[in-house]
Amino acid sequence: MTVRYKLGCQLCYEVRSPTVFIFNLEVAKLLRHHDVVESLTISPDVSRRIYEVPDIRNRYFSIEASPGPLEVRYAAEVTLEVFRADPGTIGEVPLAQVPLDIMPFLLPSRFVPSDRLSAFAQREFGKVEPGHQRVTAICNWLYENIDYQRGSSTPQTTADESLILRAGVCRDFAHLGISFCRALNIPARFVSCYAYGLEPRDFHAVFEAYLGGRWWLFDGTRQANLDGLVRIGVGRDAAEIAFASQFGDIDEGPIKITIDHADGSVEALGRTVDAISTEEPAPNAGAN
Amino acid sequence: MTVRYKLGCQLCYEVRSPTVFIFNLEVAKLLRHHDVVESLTISPDVSRRIYEVPDIRNRYFSIEASPGPLEVRYAAEVTLEVFRADPGTIGEVPLAQVPLDIMPFLLPSRFVPSDRLSAFAQREFGKVEPGHQRVTAICNWLYENIDYQRGSSTPQTTADESLILRAGVCRDFAHLGISFCRALNIPARFVSCYAYGLEPRDFHAVFEAYLGGRWWLFDGTRQANLDGLVRIGVGRDAAEIAFASQFGDIDEGPIKITIDHADGSVEALGRTVDAISTEEPAPNAGAN
Amino acid sequence: MTVRYKLGCQLCYEVRSPTVFIFNLEVAKLLRHHDVVESLTISPDVSRRIYEVPDIRNRYFSIEASPGPLEVRYAAEVTLEVFRADPGTIGEVPLAQVPLDIMPFLLPSRFVPSDRLSAFAQREFGKVEPGHQRVTAICNWLYENIDYQRGSSTPQTTADESLILRAGVCRDFAHLGISFCRALNIPARFVSCYAYGLEPRDFHAVFEAYLGGRWWLFDGTRQANLDGLVRIGVGRDAAEIAFASQFGDIDEGPIKITIDHADGSVEALGRTVDAISTEEPAPNAGAN
Amino acid sequence: MTVRYKLGCQLCYEVRSPTVFIFNLEVAKLLRHHDVVESLTISPDVSRRIYEVPDIRNRYFSIEASPGPLEVRYAAEVTLEVFRADPGTIGEVPLAQVPLDIMPFLLPSRFVPSDRLSAFAQREFGKVEPGHQRVTAICNWLYENIDYQRGSSTPQTTADESLILRAGVCRDFAHLGISFCRALNIPARFVSCYAYGLEPRDFHAVFEAYLGGRWWLFDGTRQANLDGLVRIGVGRDAAEIAFASQFGDIDEGPIKITIDHADGSVEALGRTVDAISTEEPAPNAGAN
Repeated sequence: MTVRYKLGCQLCYEVRSPTVFIFNLEVAKLLRHHDVVESLTISPDVSRRIYEVPDIRNRYFSIEASPGPLEVRYAAEVTLEVFRADPGTIGEVPLAQVPLDIMPFLLPSRFVPSDRLSAFAQREFGKVEPGHQRVTAICNWLYENIDYQRGSSTPQTTADESLILRAGVCRDFAHLGISFCRALNIPARFVSCYAYGLEPRDFHAVFEAYLGGRWWLFDGTRQANLDGLVRIGVGRDAAEIAFASQFGDIDEGPIKITIDHADGSVEALGRTVDAISTEEPAPNAGAN
Repeated sequence: MTVRYKLGCQLCYEVRSPTVFIFNLEVAKLLRHHDVVESLTISPDVSRRIYEVPDIRNRYFSIEASPGPLEVRYAAEVTLEVFRADPGTIGEVPLAQVPLDIMPFLLPSRFVPSDRLSAFAQREFGKVEPGHQRVTAICNWLYENIDYQRGSSTPQTTADESLILRAGVCRDFAHLGISFCRALNIPARFVSCYAYGLEPRDFHAVFEAYLGGRWWLFDGTRQANLDGLVRIGVGRDAAEIAFASQFGDIDEGPIKITIDHADGSVEALGRTVDAISTEEPAPNAGAN
Repeated sequence: MTVRYKLGCQLCYEVRSPTVFIFNLEVAKLLRHHDVVESLTISPDVSRRIYEVPDIRNRYFSIEASPGPLEVRYAAEVTLEVFRADPGTIGEVPLAQVPLDIMPFLLPSRFVPSDRLSAFAQREFGKVEPGHQRVTAICNWLYENIDYQRGSSTPQTTADESLILRAGVCRDFAHLGISFCRALNIPARFVSCYAYGLEPRDFHAVFEAYLGGRWWLFDGTRQANLDGLVRIGVGRDAAEIAFASQFGDIDEGPIKITIDHADGSVEALGRTVDAISTEEPAPNAGAN
Repeated sequence: MTVRYKLGCQLCYEVRSPTVFIFNLEVAKLLRHHDVVESLTISPDVSRRIYEVPDIRNRYFSIEASPGPLEVRYAAEVTLEVFRADPGTIGEVPLAQVPLDIMPFLLPSRFVPSDRLSAFAQREFGKVEPGHQRVTAICNWLYENIDYQRGSSTPQTTADESLILRAGVCRDFAHLGISFCRALNIPARFVSCYAYGLEPRDFHAVFEAYLGGRWWLFDGTRQANLDGLVRIGVGRDAAEIAFASQFGDIDEGPIKITIDHADGSVEALGRTVDAISTEEPAPNAGAN
């Protein structure tokens, strides 16, 4: 079953000095993103440099903006086909069989100091049955132990700080989930997306864990439907896939994000019992 | 019932430049430390500056050592009279009734960043029945969640780091216990002591919480008998009551600590069900 | 020469749950604060618990406030007599001669991790001529290397963080100055005060270093006149002498602070070349 | 001019549980590494998984070792052809012209919190003439301000900690240099290598900055000849290119590293005045 979504965003800035912006807000070029129709408007009109990371299909574009107002508007329609499976059938991949291009997602990164959290992860999740259910156990733990609290973190907050403060936003939940996975030798990565059901509407961050030869989606916040996430990008952590990075002096104006069923129908916020993926099996899984 | 202990320590140094040492290793002048007989030998013999903090009765002495070997030997016999009570009868003191000279023990300190741990403490212990049993719950949590692990911390380790690393030594268990107490508005302080039953023999650190108008002893490590702790000093945290502080260039040699029943009898390591104090009621408790 | 100041503050709160407040905003009982005339108004009127720390003469009072608006108003007139000396005549006190009750001001504390900053302090100030001028060198370094920037720190910011971020407010400048002093074995402490010349008007924080047997004032921010500081309190760091601490659920309203010459005259912001103290020589200085 | 080097390493372990090792110790496949002759011996003999990152040419291999002793021996001869240029001719690349596949080397990473160090970098190097000489100024600053001190850091030490502690080893010098570069919008990355002249012999870490369309070598430690570095790997920071990573229970035995002129001649430790690169111009430099 597929759902067609209508989504977009509108970002406004007051640019005060010549500024390079890098944006990562277009829907990713996934095989499961069907029939994408999209438009991007930059006002005033400036030329874009475009870059699509070949392997992970993030789409960045950068612009050089002159002083004055700047508006970036993106709109898309996309039919999302999620892959569903029985979580009980999805095991962990033995370290010696993890494809080496997935190995970087086992390493600590800026906001994911998994090297400091191995004892914590072992203590809390070391005895949980391995596989998809272990990462679900991590998500349940996050939901039960960390307060989702706007304003509780900054762009520099690391996962160990969130753990101490017991509070965070979606970004921090994802960083903590990734930390615990990596500390348990489960490859994990950060996912930015348009999330159906999220209120108030905003960009969303969740994470993927590499299990049984494929990347699976997880969300410890329970703020959106796991089968309603339209991917923007993936990275080691939030440092790699900021929606917008600026190198210059600017004022940020309001941000507006939307995602709705394209046919206007409404779906309740709910939690599926299926394991959900919007990725294909890793090309070299099992081939090692 | 009282027990007479025979205890002491021997500290050796190779002093390489003129060095000021401050020691805090003599038994505290408590009313419940009866019939103290003690001797202190410094080789080579140098003059001591002596200082006893009037309120908390820590006994510091400082020396200026010249280059060469230095040995400090302390031996004491002391009869310890512990005060026992039924934990169920010991409540928390409402903030507005905490004597103001006990207030500093509610503040964060160098190794006790209780200001960062309030959400954590609330989450884990906020719903536990207040009183002596709440601090016991904290100790049980420490025992179950933190690994007692030699070499897992340094003299600069703070309680939030121990919490992340899930490991520490007695000093770190005490700092974490104090952190949680202060975060719950229970005054708490660091206690250094000679500890009957501790193996291998070493100085020990535990903590006290101020409850029902009196300071009560707690130890999350379960490494020694709570009713066999002969106090050396108390402070906000380990920064205040190092056994030895040096200002100069030295090599530390071996340390030897002993504590035994003076009559040669041996007692098993065990946990008393009583609340234990070696302090008198706070002089101004209730007088506010 | 003395100056008479007229000063005060007005603090407003909306109390939402029964809340214990501890305030420390009255002028300290110093010998050099002459002819103090003061008034304190709490609306609604509630009983105060009063506490004056005998040695350091901080004046705390605590109240228990019921839900509703709360206003605390303090007004005072005080004649300040500063003690001036030639900085070149003020040396450092050898460690072995530091009175032991001043020793705690050599220890690291919550916001002053001087134990981590000894190499930094040695590198920057180890070769500066000891004495008052060395602490002045620290203040000059702070002024030249740290940006005074509102909003750059939080109540949990520690001195090592300010050093990394190269920014802070008066509290952070004081914490860093204290850190460097303690790392160099110069006792140092945090001072809160009403500061003539500070714009915009606010409580101010500076620090004192113990040199030549007396506490001397220092201010790395250059935001106020060093000889126009009317002391409120002293402590190891900001943790000990918050102007107001609350234990409960409140909203903070506006704060208003004033300090003017009582005779209405106006003095320019300037930097005196004298060493300035508002303390007496340490009672036991030299007596060790 | 080229030099032929004879180099190698020998790593010994006692494996206590089945352990996956990932090694990164073979010389990188650079165009400027000519006539490589090499041998790798693993005892006991186990099969290797081999992986070479296409773009950056790091060579990883992984093995699964059974309990018992393990020895890895690598030996190589390689003729190194360095590229030299006049530093004064090498400018910085405007952000808008940085190839997007080099952009990740502007981002903060696990041990390089460049996002926290921008004010520090601006303060110290913001006014230095841009280009190769600015990165040289960074290296000079490191040499003058940070103590090269064995044992001063751990595998978890981050660049901001090294900055506070003013001490580190080659890894920490590289992390700090990279931090300052990234904070100044100069792409920079971590380089592991065999380093001619390093005493005592060990693996070495330096860094590269992307300037004028090419990666240039820098070393703030001055411990080895910049034109005698035989590359092993590059990465964002030390997390990506550990010489050896283990997932299992092992004891590390002694490590032995060698690098000599193949002809037996000896060269003094010295500092070249040239800018040194062992990389080709970025394939897409200028093509943006």
